[in-house]
Amino acid sequence: MDRFRDSEALARFATDPASAYAAVRAASEALASPLSPEDTTPQSMEDASPTKWHLAHTTWFFETFVLEPRPGHRPFDPSFRVLFNSYYNTVGEQHPRPRRGLITRPSLAEVRAYRASVDERMAAVLAGAPTPEELAVIELGLHHEQQHQELMLTDLKHLFSSNPLKPVYHDAERPRIRAAKSGWLAWGGGERWIGHDGEGFAFDNEGPRHRLWLEGFELASRPVTNAEYLAFMADGGYDRPELWLSDGWATVQSEEWNAPLYWEDRDGEWWTLTLGGAEPLRPDDPVTHVSLYEADAYATWACARLPSEAEWECAAWRLPVEGNFVESGALHPSPSEHASDEHPVQMYGDVWEWTRSAYAPYPRYQPPEGAIGEYNGKFMSNQLVLRGGSCATPRSHVRETYRNFFYPHQRWQFTGIRLARDL
Amino acid sequence: MDRFRDSEALARFATDPASAYAAVRAASEALASPLSPEDTTPQSMEDASPTKWHLAHTTWFFETFVLEPRPGHRPFDPSFRVLFNSYYNTVGEQHPRPRRGLITRPSLAEVRAYRASVDERMAAVLAGAPTPEELAVIELGLHHEQQHQELMLTDLKHLFSSNPLKPVYHDAERPRIRAAKSGWLAWGGGERWIGHDGEGFAFDNEGPRHRLWLEGFELASRPVTNAEYLAFMADGGYDRPELWLSDGWATVQSEEWNAPLYWEDRDGEWWTLTLGGAEPLRPDDPVTHVSLYEADAYATWACARLPSEAEWECAAWRLPVEGNFVESGALHPSPSEHASDEHPVQMYGDVWEWTRSAYAPYPRYQPPEGAIGEYNGKFMSNQLVLRGGSCATPRSHVRETYRNFFYPHQRWQFTGIRLARDL
Amino acid sequence: MDRFRDSEALARFATDPASAYAAVRAASEALASPLSPEDTTPQSMEDASPTKWHLAHTTWFFETFVLEPRPGHRPFDPSFRVLFNSYYNTVGEQHPRPRRGLITRPSLAEVRAYRASVDERMAAVLAGAPTPEELAVIELGLHHEQQHQELMLTDLKHLFSSNPLKPVYHDAERPRIRAAKSGWLAWGGGERWIGHDGEGFAFDNEGPRHRLWLEGFELASRPVTNAEYLAFMADGGYDRPELWLSDGWATVQSEEWNAPLYWEDRDGEWWTLTLGGAEPLRPDDPVTHVSLYEADAYATWACARLPSEAEWECAAWRLPVEGNFVESGALHPSPSEHASDEHPVQMYGDVWEWTRSAYAPYPRYQPPEGAIGEYNGKFMSNQLVLRGGSCATPRSHVRETYRNFFYPHQRWQFTGIRLARDL
Amino acid sequence: MDRFRDSEALARFATDPASAYAAVRAASEALASPLSPEDTTPQSMEDASPTKWHLAHTTWFFETFVLEPRPGHRPFDPSFRVLFNSYYNTVGEQHPRPRRGLITRPSLAEVRAYRASVDERMAAVLAGAPTPEELAVIELGLHHEQQHQELMLTDLKHLFSSNPLKPVYHDAERPRIRAAKSGWLAWGGGERWIGHDGEGFAFDNEGPRHRLWLEGFELASRPVTNAEYLAFMADGGYDRPELWLSDGWATVQSEEWNAPLYWEDRDGEWWTLTLGGAEPLRPDDPVTHVSLYEADAYATWACARLPSEAEWECAAWRLPVEGNFVESGALHPSPSEHASDEHPVQMYGDVWEWTRSAYAPYPRYQPPEGAIGEYNGKFMSNQLVLRGGSCATPRSHVRETYRNFFYPHQRWQFTGIRLARDL
Repeated sequence: MDRFRDSEALARFATDPASAYAAVRAASEALASPLSPEDTTPQSMEDASPTKWHLAHTTWFFETFVLEPRPGHRPFDPSFRVLFNSYYNTVGEQHPRPRRGLITRPSLAEVRAYRASVDERMAAVLAGAPTPEELAVIELGLHHEQQHQELMLTDLKHLFSSNPLKPVYHDAERPRIRAAKSGWLAWGGGERWIGHDGEGFAFDNEGPRHRLWLEGFELASRPVTNAEYLAFMADGGYDRPELWLSDGWATVQSEEWNAPLYWEDRDGEWWTLTLGGAEPLRPDDPVTHVSLYEADAYATWACARLPSEAEWECAAWRLPVEGNFVESGALHPSPSEHASDEHPVQMYGDVWEWTRSAYAPYPRYQPPEGAIGEYNGKFMSNQLVLRGGSCATPRSHVRETYRNFFYPHQRWQFTGIRLARDL
Repeated sequence: MDRFRDSEALARFATDPASAYAAVRAASEALASPLSPEDTTPQSMEDASPTKWHLAHTTWFFETFVLEPRPGHRPFDPSFRVLFNSYYNTVGEQHPRPRRGLITRPSLAEVRAYRASVDERMAAVLAGAPTPEELAVIELGLHHEQQHQELMLTDLKHLFSSNPLKPVYHDAERPRIRAAKSGWLAWGGGERWIGHDGEGFAFDNEGPRHRLWLEGFELASRPVTNAEYLAFMADGGYDRPELWLSDGWATVQSEEWNAPLYWEDRDGEWWTLTLGGAEPLRPDDPVTHVSLYEADAYATWACARLPSEAEWECAAWRLPVEGNFVESGALHPSPSEHASDEHPVQMYGDVWEWTRSAYAPYPRYQPPEGAIGEYNGKFMSNQLVLRGGSCATPRSHVRETYRNFFYPHQRWQFTGIRLARDL
Repeated sequence: MDRFRDSEALARFATDPASAYAAVRAASEALASPLSPEDTTPQSMEDASPTKWHLAHTTWFFETFVLEPRPGHRPFDPSFRVLFNSYYNTVGEQHPRPRRGLITRPSLAEVRAYRASVDERMAAVLAGAPTPEELAVIELGLHHEQQHQELMLTDLKHLFSSNPLKPVYHDAERPRIRAAKSGWLAWGGGERWIGHDGEGFAFDNEGPRHRLWLEGFELASRPVTNAEYLAFMADGGYDRPELWLSDGWATVQSEEWNAPLYWEDRDGEWWTLTLGGAEPLRPDDPVTHVSLYEADAYATWACARLPSEAEWECAAWRLPVEGNFVESGALHPSPSEHASDEHPVQMYGDVWEWTRSAYAPYPRYQPPEGAIGEYNGKFMSNQLVLRGGSCATPRSHVRETYRNFFYPHQRWQFTGIRLARDL
Repeated sequence: MDRFRDSEALARFATDPASAYAAVRAASEALASPLSPEDTTPQSMEDASPTKWHLAHTTWFFETFVLEPRPGHRPFDPSFRVLFNSYYNTVGEQHPRPRRGLITRPSLAEVRAYRASVDERMAAVLAGAPTPEELAVIELGLHHEQQHQELMLTDLKHLFSSNPLKPVYHDAERPRIRAAKSGWLAWGGGERWIGHDGEGFAFDNEGPRHRLWLEGFELASRPVTNAEYLAFMADGGYDRPELWLSDGWATVQSEEWNAPLYWEDRDGEWWTLTLGGAEPLRPDDPVTHVSLYEADAYATWACARLPSEAEWECAAWRLPVEGNFVESGALHPSPSEHASDEHPVQMYGDVWEWTRSAYAPYPRYQPPEGAIGEYNGKFMSNQLVLRGGSCATPRSHVRETYRNFFYPHQRWQFTGIRLARDL
């Protein structure tokens, strides 16, 4: 699985796009390599997709948006245009999302052949003289593929969780580290700028860079740990409606939540599922697989709140993009060995940090023309922004301005909690 | 029905709270007066409540939060504490919301007796020396009752719409006015303040007043009309996914929407339901009973967008709170006789204007202690802010800073559309 | 409420149809007389209907099938033809069943006026020279109205059960009687005839009379009591899948059943709901409000089975139609004062007895031509036959050959259990 | 695929159980042999199961009921006891049925190893001196495996139908034959015996043999064809509620049925899905993939009715068990080359023929003691009996007394229609 440990893969795109392309594409295949054809086929819930589908859809992206517009294009298989279209209405019809797991054919081997065929043609494009527009779409396609690499892992984890045998994806020794004591770090208020300035790659939703006014705030020095979350639970966290958003409390009751996703009470001891199998819960690990509702209730209980995305971005300003990313191979959040009175730790990697900010367009945001305009803009309702990447994110994928987004009830990503409060 | 036409009712609270109390309470009864016991009992959907329940719940508010804490209090009926509690977990259990329409007893007459009993005791409180804390809760209770007055009308309209006989709530001649041409009005950008400053009554969610940075923007001079919305429909509005938010498009398909709520195609002519009965759609009326999704899709089609709540509030600055409110007796949005190149019209009354702003806490917002803290704060997820009041809102109820909120799919309020765009 | 105690009402039809008509119609109104307009309006579940709807629909039957075909007919209100049509596709459209509770207008008073108007016109028909065909439909309409009288009571009970105040429909002292010990009574096998022979009124589904072969069997001398059912529960009845039909066990789990409908555990003591209010469960009463699934599981636990409808009918042969019917005014099943070694008791009245027989057409059954053909035949799938009538059935309504039918999961009727076993 | 063409497999059981065992087990593997690991994994609806699950569950049956009770038994994998238990509560817990498609591990190869291991141990049992009780369970297990062979084909067909590529399971030329004209054959009434007499193998639900009285009836000489069913459709069959059972009409509307399952209207021409791929509908083929509701509506339209199971069994008396079974390799119903004025054709094979008989216990039926008692008895509610086997049934599997059963809305089996009428 070393091939996906090329943490600089995408950083090379500007100078050597063919190498970047090859590295990112290889990383997807490396992630799928421990899996059997059976593992890559079913879909465990509507939110998740089969590995085989991810491998095909990321390929479809290049075929549809790079190869198809070129003269003389002949599709690998004309039926794939519908079958592996995720949600691009501009491209045309889509195979219904809830039925992605029923596509037993093409087989995994055929999907690999599809990848090889497109890769060969893409290599020719890159070896030729791609236009700047083509290069821009290719770069977008690689960032897109990285997003699906993360989903491959979280979707697979969800699938495996439905199997009482609790299959193991990989064997990984995770070091045992004590979590540092959490402290508060302060930032003054005033006029601030956030959003991407256009230097280097960013998704459209990260810009335009714009001004806003921030009040002074404090941020926790590190994410909330399992031990801290257990204290919330022991204090009746899941039984006290006054701690919850109204929609959150309704969800707790209808879903009968009493712990984060993948936690299991085995005779009074909490276990959790990792991609390395089920194991006793480690108290020092950052809590993960929590919904926005749980994150918000925890913050209320802790006399704090969640940060806004602007606060998070200001706090992350000029911090190096380092942390427990997919390249570490741990595939599970861990405590940091580093602690500091000067700056927050674990802002990147480990867990996506829920913010209280609705996923909405920045001032003067305009989605791009054409099908690519469907990439981000149409999802700007009902979701909330998360920041910083997780243990399943490729390191070269995130930035200070990166905006991830999920619905407040969703828990199958590596989501976690960083507290904030007013100064 | 003249009693609810006291448009200054609540404005008198500071100087004559007993009179304000009597006037607001009387307005609720006036609104219910055309209704039979049968009309006040059923519940047509989970979002709506029976008139009888509204009449009782608003009374419960005073009994629970003003009378109950007083020494020697004896409840009118101890079972009402649960039966008419809406969502205050701090107070205790609640009768399940979806079963509000199955409570045939107490009868309407008994609920009226309940109102009379509480009113009598409240009169004694007000004639005595209420504490400032009590006065604050009483004032809140009256604003609360006004909110339910609006819901009584919109919930009743929904109930009546389920009856093929299309019952008529009231007879009202609405004048026929031509809508003025819509224009654009511009506001420059810069640092701005929004939110309530604490002078006079406001809900907790309207504050604290705080600074933010606005980019320059334009706002339409008046709300979108039925004629304009019909043009969107004629241009395939409900069939073109590229115009819609992703969740909106999913809703269009699952709900099979092809027009605003209450519209009915009768042999090629559009009719709509009003509280005065079914009638042919008037092209000059502001479009109403649209969801946020429809408002957003319309705006996209019109090459514009919805305003943010800050933009709306800045545009409303110092405008008089005048318009087609409940006191006009029309109970339906109408074109304005006024037009202006200087300022927007119909900012108040007619239709609640959807904004693109998620309903979220303002910086440094803290919900109040105790049960009253559940009034607003716990709903700050998944909903969007609407501004300006409607034809069913009491005039003394709204303000420049007033934040109403609904889920993006909801349509049974008098909701409408005002366009905005970047400068 | 004495007017519905005319237990011979329908028996007079052959000799004095006008008097029979008046008596049956008056009984419906007597049943509704303790109810407020509010009580008669809502619908507590799709299976149930509002009292107001029952009063109107039974009237609609006469207007549609007797008055409408007559020359010069003018409908009371043309909209009622759709509004109060239950399921007659041959007549035309129907107001959707799940929305019967949203029809607040016509009011109860207007429905009573509708009844009066139709009754007046029906009196004229009966005073004239009705054709034999008309007389047949009128007689059917009166039996139909009696069915709805029973439903008025059971639907109201369900509605009242949704109100935490547990409203009381009537005050009735029920005598306390000890249940006799249950014994077994035997019938030999052989060729037998069942089904109605055409003498006197019967529904179409009771015929044709036909031969069948019965093996010898035994029947319990009386219905199962609450005390006996409690022994089943104490022995883990609701926790032992081996006692249940597969679909029954699935229902127990999805519905979280642990007792008959309307039973409530109050601090370790079982209470139940009656139309006279909540009361401690009486151990000697016949168990009621059980589904077919519960009846079958109880029988399996008791090393017995449910009777077939043919067995029941043979056992009922020549027994007088006597028992605890609606005319007793108890409106709840009770133990019988009578016991016998010779014949079963309580075959009629108290509780409808579940049989193991699917509701299916008898050999050579043909539904009548026209709309009346929809009365019974189209329901001959997925339901099971019950026999004997209940404490809510008019005495003149049932017969030895009478076939009632409900779905196996339904519990809101006065259903009960009589055991059978092979000889 | 020749190995499953051993149509005498089970007939040898009495004389050579080891050979019968090997042949039936080999047939399952032959049926799965054209499938990839991907094909055998997902579950396309709750009613269906993955091929991999079928292969494992049939093996679990022998391991659990034959090997496990033997001294010194060591399970192949202890977790399989729960994982591959279908519905035997007496054995213990079951993996939830709707999640059978999420079990990617064990892999198909591991399931084959499981089969080999159990087969090896079973061979030792059979080579030793199995007790009569063991032999009885082994014979039951082989009939059980044949039932799952049929389900493997119908479940796979359903899975493939969800794939827009319409995968092909096998290539088979089906001969083109003209359907004979349908005629009526008469049987007189009288006392008759049906049910299995205990000679040779039968499922418990086929007995006891018992007497009943039959009225004279006629049966159609052959099943209804596609051409005949198209006439029903052309005559508004799916739009005329008067033809349908009430529950059937509700299903037509909620499921939006307008043709049998797997039919597709391609530009005005009907196509259908076969296991050999999509093809234009052949008018002479027996109509298949119809629900009981459709069968009943068709019969009503044709002025006929469905037969009772007793009528069918009497008509099948002494007919040879011959027809288009799985061994023909067609895997689709076809017209018969044979026609006769003397006896009905295609009573066996081609399509399971819906009867109007509820699946209920025969008089004096008792389920066996222990877990095997769950095999049939607990399903005796809500389902209807089908007779005669289909093109996916092994020839040695059916008998004159064989009772298959499905819910009236189910369509994914090879179900069809044979008409009956009163004499």
